[in-house]
Amino acid sequence: MNPKRITNVLEKLNNADALLVSDPIAIYYLIDRMIHPGERFLGLLLKKDQKPKLFLNTLFPFEKEEGIEVVDYSDSDDITKILSKHIDPSDTLGVDKCLQARFLLPMQEAAIAKAYVNGSLAVDHTRAIKDEEELELLRKSSLINDMAMERFKKLVYEGVSEKEVADQILDIYLELGAEGFSFEPIVAFGKNAADPHHMPDDTKLKAGDAVLFDVGCVYKSYCSDMTRTFFFKEGPNEKQKEVYDLVRKANEDAENYVKAGVRLCDIDKVARDVITKGGYGKYFTHRLGHFIGIEDHEYGDVSSSFTDLTQENNVFSIEPGIYDPETLGCRIEDLVIVTKEGCEVLNHYPHDIEII
Amino acid sequence: MNPKRITNVLEKLNNADALLVSDPIAIYYLIDRMIHPGERFLGLLLKKDQKPKLFLNTLFPFEKEEGIEVVDYSDSDDITKILSKHIDPSDTLGVDKCLQARFLLPMQEAAIAKAYVNGSLAVDHTRAIKDEEELELLRKSSLINDMAMERFKKLVYEGVSEKEVADQILDIYLELGAEGFSFEPIVAFGKNAADPHHMPDDTKLKAGDAVLFDVGCVYKSYCSDMTRTFFFKEGPNEKQKEVYDLVRKANEDAENYVKAGVRLCDIDKVARDVITKGGYGKYFTHRLGHFIGIEDHEYGDVSSSFTDLTQENNVFSIEPGIYDPETLGCRIEDLVIVTKEGCEVLNHYPHDIEII
Repeated sequence: MNPKRITNVLEKLNNADALLVSDPIAIYYLIDRMIHPGERFLGLLLKKDQKPKLFLNTLFPFEKEEGIEVVDYSDSDDITKILSKHIDPSDTLGVDKCLQARFLLPMQEAAIAKAYVNGSLAVDHTRAIKDEEELELLRKSSLINDMAMERFKKLVYEGVSEKEVADQILDIYLELGAEGFSFEPIVAFGKNAADPHHMPDDTKLKAGDAVLFDVGCVYKSYCSDMTRTFFFKEGPNEKQKEVYDLVRKANEDAENYVKAGVRLCDIDKVARDVITKGGYGKYFTHRLGHFIGIEDHEYGDVSSSFTDLTQENNVFSIEPGIYDPETLGCRIEDLVIVTKEGCEVLNHYPHDIEII
Repeated sequence: MNPKRITNVLEKLNNADALLVSDPIAIYYLIDRMIHPGERFLGLLLKKDQKPKLFLNTLFPFEKEEGIEVVDYSDSDDITKILSKHIDPSDTLGVDKCLQARFLLPMQEAAIAKAYVNGSLAVDHTRAIKDEEELELLRKSSLINDMAMERFKKLVYEGVSEKEVADQILDIYLELGAEGFSFEPIVAFGKNAADPHHMPDDTKLKAGDAVLFDVGCVYKSYCSDMTRTFFFKEGPNEKQKEVYDLVRKANEDAENYVKAGVRLCDIDKVARDVITKGGYGKYFTHRLGHFIGIEDHEYGDVSSSFTDLTQENNVFSIEPGIYDPETLGCRIEDLVIVTKEGCEVLNHYPHDIEII
């Protein structure tokens, strides 16, 4: 378990007396055990000055640990009744945003607490600020991703299909020490690169195509995520070069703008302004970035509507793109760690135009 | 949309005045549109003598249809406020078992209904009785599965790995007209067949191994699911034959017992008694079967604790197994449709011992 993270969550819990965490990923983050309960109830009850209590079906093995009280239950038990013995009925209980009605409604029916509120932000805000252990794993995960990109670009040849390339990506990650994908890799040739969510298909590669890789791996549970856009055999024409340079400038201007204490929406604006002034604003169709950690997409956006200030050790993506089917589909994405004076870019693979 | 199914759900709704369905699969079942809302709210409001109302984010395209009122909302709208305009505050509102707290809590806070109950059973019980259209698709899906099994058994040769075999299964399904897997296929050689949840790995096939395929496809959204256990190059020894014959008898006795109006737990007992009397009871470690339809596992079990009576046009699996690592891992699984006098077995691939 991780007492510091639990303390941080309880300090941020400002709308409830206790918090019942039920998201298995959040529980993993807090007690370092990954349990997939399926349809069964799993909950971690947190309250100041109390030992954390884990409600766990006896079907799941759990090695005992000093700091956690495990409350076992079996399939024939009534989980609401068991929870009621551990929750103060005069407390306002924070629950996860994803707690399902089949658990919440019986808890309310039995009045095991005075009131129920969405307490997820306490966990989300804690997870958004990575500690040193997490930063090291995120650095390592992105380092593997950098090395992998060197190898991915060598997989292409005239006539190979996107799928044939994509099918080789997992083995490269595994060889480099990763555990698997952080998301299904995107490999897009030519016009397909102009669809930001294109999935690899039977499209065959030909000279002059753009080759876009949007890829990431998991290393010790932490995700990486990077995009590069290459050119196959022939360099970009003048208009393509203009598009590429705009995306690159949007990426780099945004990364240069990042530091602790700026509004996340303003980082999005820096990148968007570059592309809009260049005349391609309508082809940049998504937010600039997302927070990342144990999950590829975590709470927190780099978008026009997300006005929170950055904090030291936030980790998110900077991924501007231009998707002009007539000219070029292009995206350049890095992960960054926010620092007091700027940011640490986790991806070291260059941004230069590269003919492969 | 499917007015008959909606009428059936409303007739079975006995604990609420209206039902807000939010499970995308249930909504697909009721209105024949598959919408994946991701983090956004999706809901279908059903009430007697009212047109069904679909609450849908404007991001998702929807071709208008006579019988449904679509209530559009955008990301900047407050979905609770919008729901409140369509729900009678004096009604008890049924919600899905899987409705998340981030939607349910604000609805309760705003008191858009008088009370909130889990109304999922009305949908679950309706889905458990298949209509003619569904039965036809389930028959077709299992027919493809029968034909596919003929081809899967030809994929094996000395030294091939489970993974290498499993990797060819999808293409065979697609060639036969299926849309994909209903679940990740299980291919298990030798001792691996004694783990009911074994996933294909690098284990190589050798003479004398059992070869277990637990496989299913999706045809027009409906699932199939069948298991057969073959022997590679050499027939079973005497003890293996004893195990195989017990599993086969458990399967066939259970299938012969099935008809409308018997208790589901008693079907499980018929199969379990055969295996227990044969001395292998402790090696039959799971329930006899599960309901199936649009999802591979739907509400409804064939297990010792599920005492509901079968009804005509229930569709479920009959899948006894013996998992004795010293002797043999073996499972024989078919899908059946319950009829008035018995059942229609959807799988036609024989149960005989087969050396491949």
